[in-house]
Amino acid sequence: MIKFFEKDPYAPIQYVYDVEKVLYKGKSEFQEIMVIENPHFGKMLILDGTVQITERDEFFYHEMLVHVLMHAHPDPKKVIVIGGGDGGTVREVLKHDSVEKVYFIEIDEEVINVSKKFFPSVAGSIGSSRVEIKCMDGAEFVKGRDGDIDIVIVDSTDIIGFAKSLFTVEFFKSVKDCLTEDGMFVTLSESMHFHKDMVIEVQEAMRLIFPIVDLYTAPLATYAGNWWTFSCASKKHDLRQMRKDFKIDARYYSDEIHKQAFMPPGMYERLMQRNLMW
Amino acid sequence: MIKFFEKDPYAPIQYVYDVEKVLYKGKSEFQEIMVIENPHFGKMLILDGTVQITERDEFFYHEMLVHVLMHAHPDPKKVIVIGGGDGGTVREVLKHDSVEKVYFIEIDEEVINVSKKFFPSVAGSIGSSRVEIKCMDGAEFVKGRDGDIDIVIVDSTDIIGFAKSLFTVEFFKSVKDCLTEDGMFVTLSESMHFHKDMVIEVQEAMRLIFPIVDLYTAPLATYAGNWWTFSCASKKHDLRQMRKDFKIDARYYSDEIHKQAFMPPGMYERLMQRNLMW
Repeated sequence: MIKFFEKDPYAPIQYVYDVEKVLYKGKSEFQEIMVIENPHFGKMLILDGTVQITERDEFFYHEMLVHVLMHAHPDPKKVIVIGGGDGGTVREVLKHDSVEKVYFIEIDEEVINVSKKFFPSVAGSIGSSRVEIKCMDGAEFVKGRDGDIDIVIVDSTDIIGFAKSLFTVEFFKSVKDCLTEDGMFVTLSESMHFHKDMVIEVQEAMRLIFPIVDLYTAPLATYAGNWWTFSCASKKHDLRQMRKDFKIDARYYSDEIHKQAFMPPGMYERLMQRNLMW
Repeated sequence: MIKFFEKDPYAPIQYVYDVEKVLYKGKSEFQEIMVIENPHFGKMLILDGTVQITERDEFFYHEMLVHVLMHAHPDPKKVIVIGGGDGGTVREVLKHDSVEKVYFIEIDEEVINVSKKFFPSVAGSIGSSRVEIKCMDGAEFVKGRDGDIDIVIVDSTDIIGFAKSLFTVEFFKSVKDCLTEDGMFVTLSESMHFHKDMVIEVQEAMRLIFPIVDLYTAPLATYAGNWWTFSCASKKHDLRQMRKDFKIDARYYSDEIHKQAFMPPGMYERLMQRNLMW
């Protein structure tokens, strides 16, 4: 069988996947886009040689990126999703009835088009009347906005290349300014195994801007390093506390996982003191 | 650079490692043994093409295999370690001063010899006067023993090939019979991502024998599927509860991790009902 060798300059293990079929291969203004069929994971979306989602396990990532904050927030109505052109994050946000408006800001329209065609179970919610799509740089979109947003979610590619603008202190400041007083922010922040220094840098930058910053993790099989981190922040609310009952339809996330996903206080402290012994 | 392609028939992702140097390559009565040097993980021990330990991250696995039960047990004195010829598990057991005797049962003497030579930081405790080495099948060793053992730890290769005898109902029965009334048992049981059915099978077999059976996990980067499970059992004690203070020297395990590592009750129940939605 043909093999797909993942390209990830930051990963000390290279992942190789069987390819039953290459379903799509193209190049957008920003990146190479590929869709392959794998016997175990089903269809897989690959951007610039790195796996973004697979049909089989995308829900772990999308649920964990979205539902922790959606349950920590007292009443999220307006949400900005930056990146996540596959639509999985938007799909999870829309599971919450309180949500009136999702600003879906994806820089690369081609990713949306390809996802709509090949991943209907993921991209199916993009056409919702509650969703407003803008194909532009997310950092530009949040800059100078009024403080009317409840939650900002960054669902970008890895913290290299053009996604870099979403991991700067300036960006975090713009995010804070566009949030209401109850407002919250979450972003992927790479792996505790392979990118611990990146995790710390993202956390440190967020701490310069937000009074409350926290870190939770999920075990993901298809992202290098697997022990994946999500960095989150808020203006006043403790993010570990759920402020509504767990009622949505989810496969991995639950009220139990909400509590368990956050990094234990002692380990978190050692991480931020750069004192974890690995 | 030369590449090492891991062989794992049960893993839908193949892991590939850079090889700076092949330090050892040989064949014992039981398996092929290889030691390579990798730029990120340091020295790596490979048995029959599957990564067993790496210098950099072996402590995650060894600490989690050993310290959860060593802290749940009121006073472990006699411990049996089956497998783990690299010595990492024995090293962790010996960190507990209460331990008077470790029966170290490794079927393949060659693994011990190679580990002593190439992994002194892992195998260094094997020579302790508290350790009695026997090179034989662990299933044979526990069969018909008196009930004088406090903890039995299985640190085998994957649940295929010659390690299979360590995952049968008969073996679990022998383990139970050799334990004291406070006795406990722990074994690796593969990945929640890639081998969920195997996890369930091990749990079901253990439940036929032990009144208390439980499951905890750890995020490991170098074992396929990463979200690694440890199946544990006891005759009377709840394993989630620590019965002594956390005082040993550890890098990942802690009192916080002890509590957090166990599978949440709701998820555990869905797993055993074969009702997890993935």
